[in-house]
Amino acid sequence: MKSAALVALLSGAFMVHAQDTERNTISAIYKNALTSYQAYNNLNELCTKAPGRLLGSKESERAIHILKTQLEKNLPDTVYLQNYTTPSWRCKSPCQAVVRYGSKIDSLHVVNLGLSVSSPKAGIEGEVLEVHTLSALDSLGSGIVKDKIVFFNRAMDNSKINTFEAYGGAIDQRAKGASTASKYGAAGVLVRSLSTEAVDFPHTGVSRYAEGVKKIPNISISTNDADKLSSINKQNKGVKVWIKSDTETIDTAKTSNIISEIKGSQHPEKIILIGAHSDAWFNTPGAHDDGAGCEQMIDVFRIFKELNIKPENTIRLVLFMDEEMYQSGSKVYVEFVGKEKKEHIVCIESDAGGLLPLGFGIDAGDSVINPIKKLTLPLIEYGIYKTVKGHGGTDIEPLKQFGIPLIGLMTNSQLYFEYHHSANDTFDQVSRREMQLGTAAIASLVYLIDKNGIK
Amino acid sequence: MKSAALVALLSGAFMVHAQDTERNTISAIYKNALTSYQAYNNLNELCTKAPGRLLGSKESERAIHILKTQLEKNLPDTVYLQNYTTPSWRCKSPCQAVVRYGSKIDSLHVVNLGLSVSSPKAGIEGEVLEVHTLSALDSLGSGIVKDKIVFFNRAMDNSKINTFEAYGGAIDQRAKGASTASKYGAAGVLVRSLSTEAVDFPHTGVSRYAEGVKKIPNISISTNDADKLSSINKQNKGVKVWIKSDTETIDTAKTSNIISEIKGSQHPEKIILIGAHSDAWFNTPGAHDDGAGCEQMIDVFRIFKELNIKPENTIRLVLFMDEEMYQSGSKVYVEFVGKEKKEHIVCIESDAGGLLPLGFGIDAGDSVINPIKKLTLPLIEYGIYKTVKGHGGTDIEPLKQFGIPLIGLMTNSQLYFEYHHSANDTFDQVSRREMQLGTAAIASLVYLIDKNGIK
Repeated sequence: MKSAALVALLSGAFMVHAQDTERNTISAIYKNALTSYQAYNNLNELCTKAPGRLLGSKESERAIHILKTQLEKNLPDTVYLQNYTTPSWRCKSPCQAVVRYGSKIDSLHVVNLGLSVSSPKAGIEGEVLEVHTLSALDSLGSGIVKDKIVFFNRAMDNSKINTFEAYGGAIDQRAKGASTASKYGAAGVLVRSLSTEAVDFPHTGVSRYAEGVKKIPNISISTNDADKLSSINKQNKGVKVWIKSDTETIDTAKTSNIISEIKGSQHPEKIILIGAHSDAWFNTPGAHDDGAGCEQMIDVFRIFKELNIKPENTIRLVLFMDEEMYQSGSKVYVEFVGKEKKEHIVCIESDAGGLLPLGFGIDAGDSVINPIKKLTLPLIEYGIYKTVKGHGGTDIEPLKQFGIPLIGLMTNSQLYFEYHHSANDTFDQVSRREMQLGTAAIASLVYLIDKNGIK
Repeated sequence: MKSAALVALLSGAFMVHAQDTERNTISAIYKNALTSYQAYNNLNELCTKAPGRLLGSKESERAIHILKTQLEKNLPDTVYLQNYTTPSWRCKSPCQAVVRYGSKIDSLHVVNLGLSVSSPKAGIEGEVLEVHTLSALDSLGSGIVKDKIVFFNRAMDNSKINTFEAYGGAIDQRAKGASTASKYGAAGVLVRSLSTEAVDFPHTGVSRYAEGVKKIPNISISTNDADKLSSINKQNKGVKVWIKSDTETIDTAKTSNIISEIKGSQHPEKIILIGAHSDAWFNTPGAHDDGAGCEQMIDVFRIFKELNIKPENTIRLVLFMDEEMYQSGSKVYVEFVGKEKKEHIVCIESDAGGLLPLGFGIDAGDSVINPIKKLTLPLIEYGIYKTVKGHGGTDIEPLKQFGIPLIGLMTNSQLYFEYHHSANDTFDQVSRREMQLGTAAIASLVYLIDKNGIK
């Protein structure tokens, strides 16, 4: 046998052996994740003790403490807080809305949209003007819109298979509705909840005012009550809605990202970042969004420790504060990266709920997507069958400026908008098995990228 | 251009056109399924009005009436009952169990296993003997086992990715535990519930006695109480369990399969069978098992009607009675097929819950699996990515003797054993979107096979 052939044969044998080792490690990761209750119990603790953990709230301080303590139990090489101060916003008391028609008054299930201003103390009343698009207001103009309560009532398109697409198709009402309505003199805004379901509880979410417009109260109404209000408005004349909103901005909130590392044995200066966000809206325990993501990432560290997986590169975990409103935690981290100048091999975020994982969305070019597709082939038998171009994550998004590939865990989107940003996003809606399949998928991906790089 | 080339080109163009038509039809099926609430509302009606619809019960008669009426609203060409009489079994009153140790008595969450005999009226008491395998009893023998309450406490292996595998790995305790224990003179049997979760409610399921053995009471205990009992038994001596079971066999139950057809426009004598089972255990609304399957199949007929899809072959829907105990409905149908002598192209069953559909399991050779794999390629974008050798369904299983290919809808198995055969299998555990993705997958498969055959 020629020596070249021998080398080829041996290197072939080595590759087979390496693949066996990888498959065995992945199998061990999955077995461990599915039979440990720690992450699930951690999530219960987070949701029970720190619901409504919005930037600047006492609950968010508590959440940071809880998550840091949970992390420390997994004995990583470092755990520290990246402290910063930033303006914030809060809902002081639950907002209210009633509809008046003829001699009748019905209360409506509503919640403040994030960053909404207060109404006058006595509330504010106006005739209802139902529209389904922003451009409808442009056609109507100030003559019609002035002093009205504009009611955006375009439903998410349930015929879409991917509910995130349906969400994207309706979100302009929440994001820009108040600014557009205000431009034409509206008194306030009601926005149909971004939910796939017919339910009584409303969903919140961020809504920014465009520069220069008068800030008017901005409120989300449950899908059931949106249907009810629409029907009342069609059947009666001069239907009025009274809304009351009680919020405030906070000049300086002291808060933190949580950062933790397992140092790389070969290349400690190179970083594989895994992240999620510690904050959640004021009206929700935030179990899927994004308590599950935080606990999955913390559990990746537990699994690496328990299985004695010693990464060649540094695995850095960042639990970002304030994904929901200003992404201030993300901004602080990006600034830090700019100064630190350490190479990030990849950033992976989990912010699609602790639901059945189906794949990874990769925000990078084909030269990155193709090798990751190849790397993740052994995960197909675990249900990770979609590795495709896609969204990384809101917190890691700005890291793209450094040319870092971004990866987001993709989950079964069918149920996500039953929970998202609502009081229904509770611990009991999370399946331990599904959440832990996500943990295992991320741990396996980190392991594979650490071992093989992206090439 | 040569005429052969022209023909090839035209037939190529025709194929592209045919594929476009198919893709458009599939898209229309999905859009329709995801935006109609009828099947979901039907399921609510079935679970609310006919929970515990076990063979021979009043609830099962009501279920047959409800399902037949729902079917008739979709205006198929025929709907009729295939009536038969058969022996049955019922649980007369909920069984009970308590554990006595020292001076303490604790009650346990239990439910009769299907076909269990009654205990004496005063109940029956015995020392607890915990075992984890059937063969453990063989080693212990009559000397130890006699007069004991044998407690089978081997948990489902949660490290398995597919929970049906974990179920298969633990089911021998439920299926053969009582017969094995009785052989050695045991007084009764407790079996750890087949559940992936740590919960208080027990799961039932069928358990047959081997011929010739004395029939002893056979009871399922919740996973939480199984852990509790095991712990009490380890920490105390002479721990006793008292159980009471109150059941009876019924000599002749009058019951029915429901059969309905859309007649084929080209080959009315050839049949594509779609099926599910109308019965459910006495202790559950049976939303996932198998109310969802029934309503999906009924909705396939609605979708075909609404989209004006006129099948070339006859689509026959069979809602089988009594999948859970004796499969008597299946037997009656098989006998009918033997006499009818009409060709069944394929049989498709939905009995894996109204959960996220992921693929089809095909019980046939590669010569059938490969063309179906090819046919279902357009369904990958809808999440149907696994078309593999697998289980068809319990009701259609005996049709294999006629050489008919069997297909079962495969769903996300992660959640199934949170519900299966328990009081937790309720309507509110079903997601409309997930259930209807299953409906659309089945309707698309029926459409594709009808149009293309299996070749």
